[in-house]
Amino acid sequence: MSDHIKEFCGVFGIHNHPEAAHMTYLGLFALQHRGQESAGIVSTNGKNFYSHMGEGLVSDVFSNPKVIQALEGSIAIGHNRYSTTGSCGLHNVQPLLARIQSGPIAVAHNGNLVNSATLRRGFENNGAIFQTTTDSEVILHLVARSKHNSLPDRIAEACRQLKGAYSLVFLSPDSLIAVRDPNGFRPLALGKMAGVHVVASESCAFDLIGAEYVRDILPGEMVIIDSQGLRSVHFAPSERITQCIFEYIYFSRPDSRIFGDFVDKTRRKLGKNLAEEYPAEGADMVISVPDSSNTAALGYAQKSNLRFEIGLIRNHYIGRSFIHPSQSGRNEYVKLKFNTVGGVLKDRKVVVVEDSIVRGTTLRKLTKLLRAAGAAEVHIRVSSPPIKYPCFYGMDFPTRKELIAHDRTVDEIKHFLNVDSLNYLSLEKMLASVPEEYGGYCHACFDGSYPIYVEPEISKNYLETGPALLRV
Amino acid sequence: MSDHIKEFCGVFGIHNHPEAAHMTYLGLFALQHRGQESAGIVSTNGKNFYSHMGEGLVSDVFSNPKVIQALEGSIAIGHNRYSTTGSCGLHNVQPLLARIQSGPIAVAHNGNLVNSATLRRGFENNGAIFQTTTDSEVILHLVARSKHNSLPDRIAEACRQLKGAYSLVFLSPDSLIAVRDPNGFRPLALGKMAGVHVVASESCAFDLIGAEYVRDILPGEMVIIDSQGLRSVHFAPSERITQCIFEYIYFSRPDSRIFGDFVDKTRRKLGKNLAEEYPAEGADMVISVPDSSNTAALGYAQKSNLRFEIGLIRNHYIGRSFIHPSQSGRNEYVKLKFNTVGGVLKDRKVVVVEDSIVRGTTLRKLTKLLRAAGAAEVHIRVSSPPIKYPCFYGMDFPTRKELIAHDRTVDEIKHFLNVDSLNYLSLEKMLASVPEEYGGYCHACFDGSYPIYVEPEISKNYLETGPALLRV
Amino acid sequence: MSDHIKEFCGVFGIHNHPEAAHMTYLGLFALQHRGQESAGIVSTNGKNFYSHMGEGLVSDVFSNPKVIQALEGSIAIGHNRYSTTGSCGLHNVQPLLARIQSGPIAVAHNGNLVNSATLRRGFENNGAIFQTTTDSEVILHLVARSKHNSLPDRIAEACRQLKGAYSLVFLSPDSLIAVRDPNGFRPLALGKMAGVHVVASESCAFDLIGAEYVRDILPGEMVIIDSQGLRSVHFAPSERITQCIFEYIYFSRPDSRIFGDFVDKTRRKLGKNLAEEYPAEGADMVISVPDSSNTAALGYAQKSNLRFEIGLIRNHYIGRSFIHPSQSGRNEYVKLKFNTVGGVLKDRKVVVVEDSIVRGTTLRKLTKLLRAAGAAEVHIRVSSPPIKYPCFYGMDFPTRKELIAHDRTVDEIKHFLNVDSLNYLSLEKMLASVPEEYGGYCHACFDGSYPIYVEPEISKNYLETGPALLRV
Amino acid sequence: MSDHIKEFCGVFGIHNHPEAAHMTYLGLFALQHRGQESAGIVSTNGKNFYSHMGEGLVSDVFSNPKVIQALEGSIAIGHNRYSTTGSCGLHNVQPLLARIQSGPIAVAHNGNLVNSATLRRGFENNGAIFQTTTDSEVILHLVARSKHNSLPDRIAEACRQLKGAYSLVFLSPDSLIAVRDPNGFRPLALGKMAGVHVVASESCAFDLIGAEYVRDILPGEMVIIDSQGLRSVHFAPSERITQCIFEYIYFSRPDSRIFGDFVDKTRRKLGKNLAEEYPAEGADMVISVPDSSNTAALGYAQKSNLRFEIGLIRNHYIGRSFIHPSQSGRNEYVKLKFNTVGGVLKDRKVVVVEDSIVRGTTLRKLTKLLRAAGAAEVHIRVSSPPIKYPCFYGMDFPTRKELIAHDRTVDEIKHFLNVDSLNYLSLEKMLASVPEEYGGYCHACFDGSYPIYVEPEISKNYLETGPALLRV
Repeated sequence: MSDHIKEFCGVFGIHNHPEAAHMTYLGLFALQHRGQESAGIVSTNGKNFYSHMGEGLVSDVFSNPKVIQALEGSIAIGHNRYSTTGSCGLHNVQPLLARIQSGPIAVAHNGNLVNSATLRRGFENNGAIFQTTTDSEVILHLVARSKHNSLPDRIAEACRQLKGAYSLVFLSPDSLIAVRDPNGFRPLALGKMAGVHVVASESCAFDLIGAEYVRDILPGEMVIIDSQGLRSVHFAPSERITQCIFEYIYFSRPDSRIFGDFVDKTRRKLGKNLAEEYPAEGADMVISVPDSSNTAALGYAQKSNLRFEIGLIRNHYIGRSFIHPSQSGRNEYVKLKFNTVGGVLKDRKVVVVEDSIVRGTTLRKLTKLLRAAGAAEVHIRVSSPPIKYPCFYGMDFPTRKELIAHDRTVDEIKHFLNVDSLNYLSLEKMLASVPEEYGGYCHACFDGSYPIYVEPEISKNYLETGPALLRV
Repeated sequence: MSDHIKEFCGVFGIHNHPEAAHMTYLGLFALQHRGQESAGIVSTNGKNFYSHMGEGLVSDVFSNPKVIQALEGSIAIGHNRYSTTGSCGLHNVQPLLARIQSGPIAVAHNGNLVNSATLRRGFENNGAIFQTTTDSEVILHLVARSKHNSLPDRIAEACRQLKGAYSLVFLSPDSLIAVRDPNGFRPLALGKMAGVHVVASESCAFDLIGAEYVRDILPGEMVIIDSQGLRSVHFAPSERITQCIFEYIYFSRPDSRIFGDFVDKTRRKLGKNLAEEYPAEGADMVISVPDSSNTAALGYAQKSNLRFEIGLIRNHYIGRSFIHPSQSGRNEYVKLKFNTVGGVLKDRKVVVVEDSIVRGTTLRKLTKLLRAAGAAEVHIRVSSPPIKYPCFYGMDFPTRKELIAHDRTVDEIKHFLNVDSLNYLSLEKMLASVPEEYGGYCHACFDGSYPIYVEPEISKNYLETGPALLRV
Repeated sequence: MSDHIKEFCGVFGIHNHPEAAHMTYLGLFALQHRGQESAGIVSTNGKNFYSHMGEGLVSDVFSNPKVIQALEGSIAIGHNRYSTTGSCGLHNVQPLLARIQSGPIAVAHNGNLVNSATLRRGFENNGAIFQTTTDSEVILHLVARSKHNSLPDRIAEACRQLKGAYSLVFLSPDSLIAVRDPNGFRPLALGKMAGVHVVASESCAFDLIGAEYVRDILPGEMVIIDSQGLRSVHFAPSERITQCIFEYIYFSRPDSRIFGDFVDKTRRKLGKNLAEEYPAEGADMVISVPDSSNTAALGYAQKSNLRFEIGLIRNHYIGRSFIHPSQSGRNEYVKLKFNTVGGVLKDRKVVVVEDSIVRGTTLRKLTKLLRAAGAAEVHIRVSSPPIKYPCFYGMDFPTRKELIAHDRTVDEIKHFLNVDSLNYLSLEKMLASVPEEYGGYCHACFDGSYPIYVEPEISKNYLETGPALLRV
Repeated sequence: MSDHIKEFCGVFGIHNHPEAAHMTYLGLFALQHRGQESAGIVSTNGKNFYSHMGEGLVSDVFSNPKVIQALEGSIAIGHNRYSTTGSCGLHNVQPLLARIQSGPIAVAHNGNLVNSATLRRGFENNGAIFQTTTDSEVILHLVARSKHNSLPDRIAEACRQLKGAYSLVFLSPDSLIAVRDPNGFRPLALGKMAGVHVVASESCAFDLIGAEYVRDILPGEMVIIDSQGLRSVHFAPSERITQCIFEYIYFSRPDSRIFGDFVDKTRRKLGKNLAEEYPAEGADMVISVPDSSNTAALGYAQKSNLRFEIGLIRNHYIGRSFIHPSQSGRNEYVKLKFNTVGGVLKDRKVVVVEDSIVRGTTLRKLTKLLRAAGAAEVHIRVSSPPIKYPCFYGMDFPTRKELIAHDRTVDEIKHFLNVDSLNYLSLEKMLASVPEEYGGYCHACFDGSYPIYVEPEISKNYLETGPALLRV
């Protein structure tokens, strides 16, 4: 229904907190935007593992306070999931929980592996059984088969065999272990409060629980937190850093600090650079598509000395249970989500700053709404380049054919959207907007330059080629 | 939990639409902000009445599509309710539905009566039974006891005996009747689409269903819509028009048109006048408390030539089922709802534009968050005067003692909030910001000048003085 | 789905118990068989009334222990309801709760009034409003309009205007009042435990809470229980006692004591008299249709010196949520509820004792099952006469046309059921089986001799003739 | 809460039925008594597997008709589970579903393995991961690791490594495979209807769906049903047959045919032999504890020429959601479940036939109720010997210490129960009551003679010794 690309997951972990599960619950709440289909927490008191998972928003899955109380212990990990077609249902809700030779273990994974088909087939040929359809399950198999004694060594050996994107948090009876892949595709940050260590996909989770941002977990780094304190291991050389630039453009919350800087700051710079590259002379005002492009729109307005206005109101009451509009079909979904502010738009030349365009269908309908509200001209400025290629590292894409830019010129898209002008920020300007501190970025969705080879089977969606295990 | 004043209700009615209940559902969805505790729809096919009501958001109460289908007929009315203490539970969910001499009738009421105690006692002394604790029930008793034959005459006679605020929609087997009290306290608008008439508390409901705003129902006007078309009756002289100015300040949606003008436009003017009256020299930026003061903040920023920034992010995932923070108590509710954008606020002198201050507790916590995020100075500008008096015409107030301004000077409030400066828009400037087209405004909550005498019993909360009928 | 006549309601009341609501909950649980569609409790602490009602079984409606705790106070009444077509939904759930001149009042009603149409129309003509479609609502109107000062006097005056069947329990802030109509149609018993008085439709409710059966409330008696203790008033002369004989035949629980004797004992006597009147010579065994005809079958077996066997197993897991059998339709409902015991029935001549036959459809299917399990002969003996007339005093009947005996001879019914023999107990023998202590019985369903005149409008189902208020 | 031993599971499978899932739903409904904590179905259309599982009764888990429709295909298996302490939660709901080298596979297991600890440890040492805490998961690991090509060969090899009790149904994309362990601990029957094969724990499932009982699956037999038809393999020699005699005494439904005969018939013989061995001279009547000992009581009454009476009424409305009695504690659970029939028991000498005694607490309370209802004497006759030893083959026992007979003489138990006499059927007489057609029985719970060696770790409850994976 939504026309935005969706993130797969958010992860969180905490060590040595008397209310570990409650803190994890709050952390997942802060990371809710990274996955809204299901949520899960596993905690341990050093002996047993306690888990609770379910479909829905964090506040729904954990609406019973007794559940939080039953998640005993001072170490916990959690996971928000946006599940993809073909693998929905409780089955694939994370964290994954298993018992292996060394004892119980749980893992939460953000990202996507590109060699999971090969690894999986190898395991199956050796008699392994797979009970989920997530690619994350191979990680546990690798850890289980390692001949090393210590869990960190087992995990390190396992991760060296993985290819693709993985920000992981592991839970053992006495430790919390966080791992970020050598490319650093997905963010993963370290925080602390008195005597307590925390890891989370984004720093906004620290703000909520009153922890302080310390630093990012580095690409290729494993951080082990136990009663001895924290130690760091570089488990694999990090030859090329390719952080997902889309985290800055759209995914992460503006109040988070990722890849070395505040998202808000970068997003504003994208807006400013967009104004420089594609000004909107003669326009009366700049509006955003709330809430995702607010900051970019502010940057654009500021740089171009145009008024920033609120021309679209977003309805936040749309939940999972909404009945779709009537059969007559005249009431489209976009109208449930957005309404125009008539007084602001009437007879004005409006610049709409959007962060990205996927299918273009929502934006076309919004344009129609804006014109119906009296806008004299509608000019679209996009704070990223045209999306032309699918992502294999953890974003939930429509198929390539559905990407409006995959076979259309900007001019053709402009006609499709029925707007007066359309401009996308260039790749160069986009890259000039993001911080360089931690190295490079992956921008394969814009130019097809995939930093890691993707097995053909993966790119054809391995999980769907064989018989599916479907939970209904 | 929230520190805003709450509206009691939103109402909606539609005549001659093949999907009347579905349209009403969408209308209530658009009016969700006016009441989030319960929702109800009554429809008729000319013979039977069909009703469904429940506690929760519109999308929850009507999450089963079969329910909408079972609400047969081409005329329907609906109601969103924010229920007040002492009368929660399904018991009081509206529309009220009854059978009287003339046949079945249903009514939905937005507003509050100030002579319901007297009327009620009179009826009770005559042997009437009351099955709800809403003041709206006396309206049905009045209609039932009228000696007139026609329903419009009965309703007109009933309404002439009411004192206080009432925007009403009635449903009979063959008509939709809309009434607005002679003072015009609460908004009520008329819309249309091909062959169909619609009434709603705010025009945003028309936008969603594709209807057009025609005009406001006037104070003292009754509009009767049936197979003969629409006719209007002035059932009572409208000596003094006192529309609720708080609808402009906070209640209504910015994209609605009420009392003759767009809410957004008025709200912006409040912000501009605030900037004129109380500029913030030397400040670095203006921020709003999203989303209610966005437009006023934009107006303030524009007028004072300051940058408008997004310094607070609002979390929209907080639902009814949210578990409150841990016993350690360090994680306050306000942090669940808002997070600061560190990069924006650090070392800046910040003007926060707020629409109104009720208890002040949330604003004090927000100030603390802003300072923790590095704000060098925090200046509060409020786009309305200090609230000192309770409302008896339909706003849900805390008790007078809880109103921070009822016995504190602005300076004392400034100290309570721990801000660097605090200014409220003056009564004069507020009144200069709103349109004059339809007459005057009620501003009793600011200066105590109640336009209609309030029975002492009402002002002491009649419903609570006698034994309560509590649904648990 | 079931082929048994259904009772409308069960009522319960308790005075001066520290856990009044909990006791009422248990009492309703014991009376669950009298109404399974909805349940409600109203309690009072002398000031406020607390109520909770809902659709479903008692254990579902009150599954949240906090609800019971929230029902404060030491006096409470409760109601189980089996709702009839056209008036389902929460709307009509009892106890009815209202505020009248004398204060708050609640009432729970078991039975059916036959002059409610006239009373209702009279009230409507005088300007009353009706918010439910239960006939019980007129009772509250009558109490409210009484000019008497004391509540007992008001209730007595009200009841003297009622015609039909009514066992009532009223709740006021300081008293529990129980009333039984002068004909004594429905049972109502008085019980006690230390310092506590209890009333209930059947004495089985006393057993569960540890109270002792004292006596029946007598026809035409009102019992007032308050802090002064218990006092009894005969509010109306009881000219003719016509207790519902069907309570003995089928409705009441075998472990209850009603109308002066144990149900089990009477039911056994019905079985014995049936064996005397219609023996089954040559039969191999007697079986019951569990559980309702167990005792009658035991009596029959004993008297006729035949073995009592268990030839049918009843499945008790069928709940409200059961999905109906597949479209292929071969799996009928009766098979979900009953299975035959193959080893017992094979090649045997079986006497099936049934308490009554309504439509006959279930019994026909059961006969088919018995034959499929190998029964050589199937002989039906019914422990009551053929049902030929509808009931207007509180039983939920199918329409007269649906009663298999209304226009068929016993022989025709025998052919319809496809059984080897069929006999019904005669009216005389039935009347000879029941105790005489408290007077006579109503047996209008068997012979049409209605003890109270029924308004034609009632007999045509008044509630359905006008426009209906339907909750969906 | 209940004082009966609980069965772990019921299984069902069907091949070549157009409504396979619906038939499985009905089959599980008929087997509901074998496991009431959770239920699950897996179906296949030859390509994908569709599954739905949940906690609760079959009718609750599958209350949404769309779920049944979404379970596509003509082959399906199902499982009812009674989950044991330490492993509750959705985690362990069966059927287990996995993907192995040969493709997708699902299995439902009734019984308990006694070498699962050893097998599991072996797998863990080889790098396997375990995601449930059921012993059934090792079965899938064994099948996955087999080097055979065909699934039947894989399963046969796997089963030869299992020790203990297992009645299994497997699902593959094109076949249904049923296996019964060489000892034949648990029942498993084969049925058929036109062109369709069915397997089920008990034959009562066939009756409901209109299938015919064909024969029992034999100990050590594997039945493979696919498009080629049905073929049978004896995968392991069946040296000693030890069918669970408790299935006859209590577990199975009386209308089922297991181990070669009707349960009802055997249960009656147990009652007759009990009457011969321990008559009750001078008693006035025989009653059962409904419904489990009904048939044994009938047999006892018949043999001893005593009247069979219904002295206890069982309340079938107790569901999962029942609130426990009040804090005052005077209202015990047993009173919710049973009430006495006063008229029957008063001043009588009563023989109560019970099928077995586990803790004895319920029976003690029942005795108290019987005496309170006026019973002059209470004589208990038990249709099985004293239970002294735990079961490791699939019954859910309390710990040995909780078994009242483990360290008490019959006379001591008599005193504990406070009854006038107590007798248990002897082991010899019990064995003389059951059919010999299919070989011997396991009666280890009575005499400790375990037919298969139990690993010490199992007998100490392996699953609890290591860290537990607990779902909350």
